[in-house]
Amino acid sequence: MEFLVRFETRLPDAMGDAERKELREAERARAMRLRADGLLKRLWRVPGRRAVVGLWEAPDATALHAALSSLPQFPWMDVTVEPLATHPQET
Amino acid sequence: MEFLVRFETRLPDAMGDAERKELREAERARAMRLRADGLLKRLWRVPGRRAVVGLWEAPDATALHAALSSLPQFPWMDVTVEPLATHPQET
Amino acid sequence: MEFLVRFETRLPDAMGDAERKELREAERARAMRLRADGLLKRLWRVPGRRAVVGLWEAPDATALHAALSSLPQFPWMDVTVEPLATHPQET
Amino acid sequence: MEFLVRFETRLPDAMGDAERKELREAERARAMRLRADGLLKRLWRVPGRRAVVGLWEAPDATALHAALSSLPQFPWMDVTVEPLATHPQET
Amino acid sequence: MEFLVRFETRLPDAMGDAERKELREAERARAMRLRADGLLKRLWRVPGRRAVVGLWEAPDATALHAALSSLPQFPWMDVTVEPLATHPQET
Amino acid sequence: MEFLVRFETRLPDAMGDAERKELREAERARAMRLRADGLLKRLWRVPGRRAVVGLWEAPDATALHAALSSLPQFPWMDVTVEPLATHPQET
Amino acid sequence: MEFLVRFETRLPDAMGDAERKELREAERARAMRLRADGLLKRLWRVPGRRAVVGLWEAPDATALHAALSSLPQFPWMDVTVEPLATHPQET
Amino acid sequence: MEFLVRFETRLPDAMGDAERKELREAERARAMRLRADGLLKRLWRVPGRRAVVGLWEAPDATALHAALSSLPQFPWMDVTVEPLATHPQET
Amino acid sequence: MEFLVRFETRLPDAMGDAERKELREAERARAMRLRADGLLKRLWRVPGRRAVVGLWEAPDATALHAALSSLPQFPWMDVTVEPLATHPQET
Amino acid sequence: MEFLVRFETRLPDAMGDAERKELREAERARAMRLRADGLLKRLWRVPGRRAVVGLWEAPDATALHAALSSLPQFPWMDVTVEPLATHPQET
Repeated sequence: MEFLVRFETRLPDAMGDAERKELREAERARAMRLRADGLLKRLWRVPGRRAVVGLWEAPDATALHAALSSLPQFPWMDVTVEPLATHPQET
Repeated sequence: MEFLVRFETRLPDAMGDAERKELREAERARAMRLRADGLLKRLWRVPGRRAVVGLWEAPDATALHAALSSLPQFPWMDVTVEPLATHPQET
Repeated sequence: MEFLVRFETRLPDAMGDAERKELREAERARAMRLRADGLLKRLWRVPGRRAVVGLWEAPDATALHAALSSLPQFPWMDVTVEPLATHPQET
Repeated sequence: MEFLVRFETRLPDAMGDAERKELREAERARAMRLRADGLLKRLWRVPGRRAVVGLWEAPDATALHAALSSLPQFPWMDVTVEPLATHPQET
Repeated sequence: MEFLVRFETRLPDAMGDAERKELREAERARAMRLRADGLLKRLWRVPGRRAVVGLWEAPDATALHAALSSLPQFPWMDVTVEPLATHPQET
Repeated sequence: MEFLVRFETRLPDAMGDAERKELREAERARAMRLRADGLLKRLWRVPGRRAVVGLWEAPDATALHAALSSLPQFPWMDVTVEPLATHPQET
Repeated sequence: MEFLVRFETRLPDAMGDAERKELREAERARAMRLRADGLLKRLWRVPGRRAVVGLWEAPDATALHAALSSLPQFPWMDVTVEPLATHPQET
Repeated sequence: MEFLVRFETRLPDAMGDAERKELREAERARAMRLRADGLLKRLWRVPGRRAVVGLWEAPDATALHAALSSLPQFPWMDVTVEPLATHPQET
Repeated sequence: MEFLVRFETRLPDAMGDAERKELREAERARAMRLRADGLLKRLWRVPGRRAVVGLWEAPDATALHAALSSLPQFPWMDVTVEPLATHPQET
Repeated sequence: MEFLVRFETRLPDAMGDAERKELREAERARAMRLRADGLLKRLWRVPGRRAVVGLWEAPDATALHAALSSLPQFPWMDVTVEPLATHPQET
C-alpha cells in the first residue's frame, strides 16, 4: 500500500554543527537503506522549507511507522501520513 | 490494517420520504454485510450530528475505498479516513 | 518541473446519468492523452472521497493550467497545485 | 459512556534518557492498570507521530479526566476528548 | 454529566412563513419539555446569529443525542457538543 | 451581562513546585472572592486539559477584564471571551 | 459597552432588483435610526467585499442583538461580534 | 499605495453561455480600462483555479473598492485584499 | 486612509520587572505622540488578553508600518493590519 | 516561471546586535545579487510584521529553492511559495 508522507525537520538551535552534519549523514544513509528495501519510493523537496514530501510503500501503517521512526532525525521531525488508494486509471 | 473513518451524510432536501427510507434500509443492509465480512468493526454516532465514526479493517486503502463506495448513501457522504498503526501495548 | 495536484470533483445533482457517463469517459480519454504526452505521471485516489492526488510534470505553471483546464470535468473540479523541487537524494 | 481520546506527548528536550525511560515505564504500568479497570479499551498509534488515539470508557467526563490526569506523562501531553454516542446498528 | 452544546439553525429559504412559525412553536414546546425533564439547564443566544449555546445534562452522549434529535428543527441545525467535567472548585 | 470565558494555563517549566503550589492556592482564593462578588458564576473543567470554561457576569467587558487580570495565574493564561445574550426562552 | 461587529450580506440570487433596492433603502433608514439612537457609532467597508465592520455601543449583548436583528437585511447577514474593553490610554 | 488582491469567480450554474461570454468580454474591457488608468498593474492566474492574483495601485482602500466593484463580474467574485508597504530595498 | 490594527504583546519571560516597566512607559509615551500626530485614533483592549485593537489613520501602508515599528514594544508584538474603506453611510 | 514567495524572519532572542547587523547586511547584499541575476523581481513589506512578499522568477522550483536557501537569514525564515501562471490578459 502506498502512503504520501510529509515531514518538516527542525533541529534544536543548541545542536552543534558537527552533530548536525553527522545526523544528516546518518539520515541519508538510513534513507538509502529504506529505498533499497522498497519502502521509500520517491522524495521531493518543498521549495523554501526544510520539508519533504515522499511516496512510501509499506504493507500497512504499522510497518510504515517502523520505517519512519528508524530515521535518525525522527525525534525532530513533524510528520503527517496520508493513505493512498490505487486509481482505476493506473491498473 | 485498521482505519478510523468519519462520515457525515447529507441527503438532498428535494429527496422524498419514501426514497430516504428505502436508502436508509439499503444502507443498513449493506453495513451489516460489511460487518459480516469483517471490514466494519465498530460504529459510533457523533452526538448532535448526522455523522458517525467507524473502526474499519481492510487489507489496504484500495479495499477500504471499495467498501466505503459500496454504501448506498456514499454519493451524499463526506468521508475522511485516518490510517491507524498498532500500538505496542496492544501486542 | 513536477507538481503535486489534488482535485475533488462534484458534478451537479441535476446532471443526468447519461451526461455523467459521457463526461467520465471523455475525462478518462483526455487523461490518457495527457499521460501519453508526459504531463500526467501518476494518479492516486484519496480513499473515501471523489478526490485524486496526481503527480504532474510541465514546463511551468502556465502549461500545467492549460493541461488541467483541458479536462472535461474541469468546471466542476476544485483544484490545488503544489510545486515540487528535486530532492538532493534523487539526483 | 465511550470517548475517543487523542494525545500527543512531547517530553522536554532537557529531560535525560534515564528519566525518560523511567517515565515511559511508569506510563505503561499506569495504562495497564487503567485497562484492567476497564477505562482504557483500545489504543492505536498515529503513524509517523508520538501520538495515540484511544477508546476509553468512563461513567462521565469527570471520571475520564481523573483517569487521564493519573498518567505519569500527563503534564507533557496535549489531549483532546470526543464524546461518542451508541450507534443504533450496534445495539 | 454536563455538556456545552452549540447550535445554529438555518431553515431553507423555500420554507413558508406559516411552516416556520409552526416549527418555532413546536421547537419552543419541545425545549420546555426538555427543561422540565432536567436535560436542558440553560440557554444563551449568540449575539448577531441564529445560534444558541446551551448547558445540558444527560446520563451520557447517547441520551443527549436522543434529546437533541427530538427537537423539531433538528434536521436544519448544525450542532457541536463539548463534554464538561466537574471543576474541583465547584464541589 | 454574561460571558463564556475559556482559559488554558501553562506555567513555565522552570517554575519550582513550591511556587506552583503557592500560585494555585492564591488562584483558588482569588476565584473564591470573585464568586462571592458574583462575577464568577460557574466553572467547568475541559476533560484532558489544564483548561476551564467559566460562566462570568460583569457590567461590561472592561469590568470582566479587570476581574480576569486580577487572577494570580493571569500572566500564564491564554484566555478567550465570548459575549452571551439572553435567550427569549430564559425570560 | 462597545462591540466590534462584522457582517457580510448575501442576498439570494433569486431576489429581484426591485426587492433588493427596497431592502437596501430600508436597511439604510434603519441604520440611520440606530445611529441617531447612539447604538451604531461608526461603519467601514471591507474593500472588495459586501462586508462591513462597525463600532457599536449597547448596554449589553442582548440589546446589541436586538439592534442587529432589527436590520431588514438581518436574515441574509453573517454576523460576528467581538466585545471591546476600554483601553487605559483612552481614559 | 499598492495592494495584493486575490479573487475567485464563480458564475451561477444557471447562467447561459451567451451571458457568460458577454460578461467575460465586458470584464476584459473593464480590466483593460483599469490598466490604462494605472489601477491594475499586474495579473496572474492561480494554476488549476478560476482565480487570479493581482497587483493594484490606488490612493486608498476606498478608491480600490470603487475599482474592484466596477468589474462586471464583481457580484460573483470572492475577493480578499492585502495592503502592501514599500520595502526598503525597493527605494 | 484608516486601518484596523490588532496586536498582542508577549514580552520574554526572562525580562526583568524594571525593564518591563521602563518599556511600558516608553510605549505609552510613544503612543501618546502618535495620537498627537493623528496616526492613532482609538485603542480598545481585547478582554482577557494582552492584546489591543486600534483604529489608525495614515497616508498609506508604508507610513503605517513606520508608525507601528516606532513603538518600543514592536519587537515583541504580533501585528495584523486590515485596510478599511469609507462606508457610503459615513459620507 | 514566476512565484509569489512570502517569508517571515525571526532571529533568535539570544542573537547579539552585532551579529544581527552583520546578518542583515549580508542578507541585503545577497538579495541585491539575486535581483541582478533576475531571480528576485519585486519585494513588498507586510505592514506591521517582519515579513515580506516577493515576486520571483526561476526556471523551476528547484532553482527557486536554491536561490531562497542562499539567503543568509534562510535558517530563521518561515517561507511559503505559490506558483503563478501567466494571465491571458498579460500576453
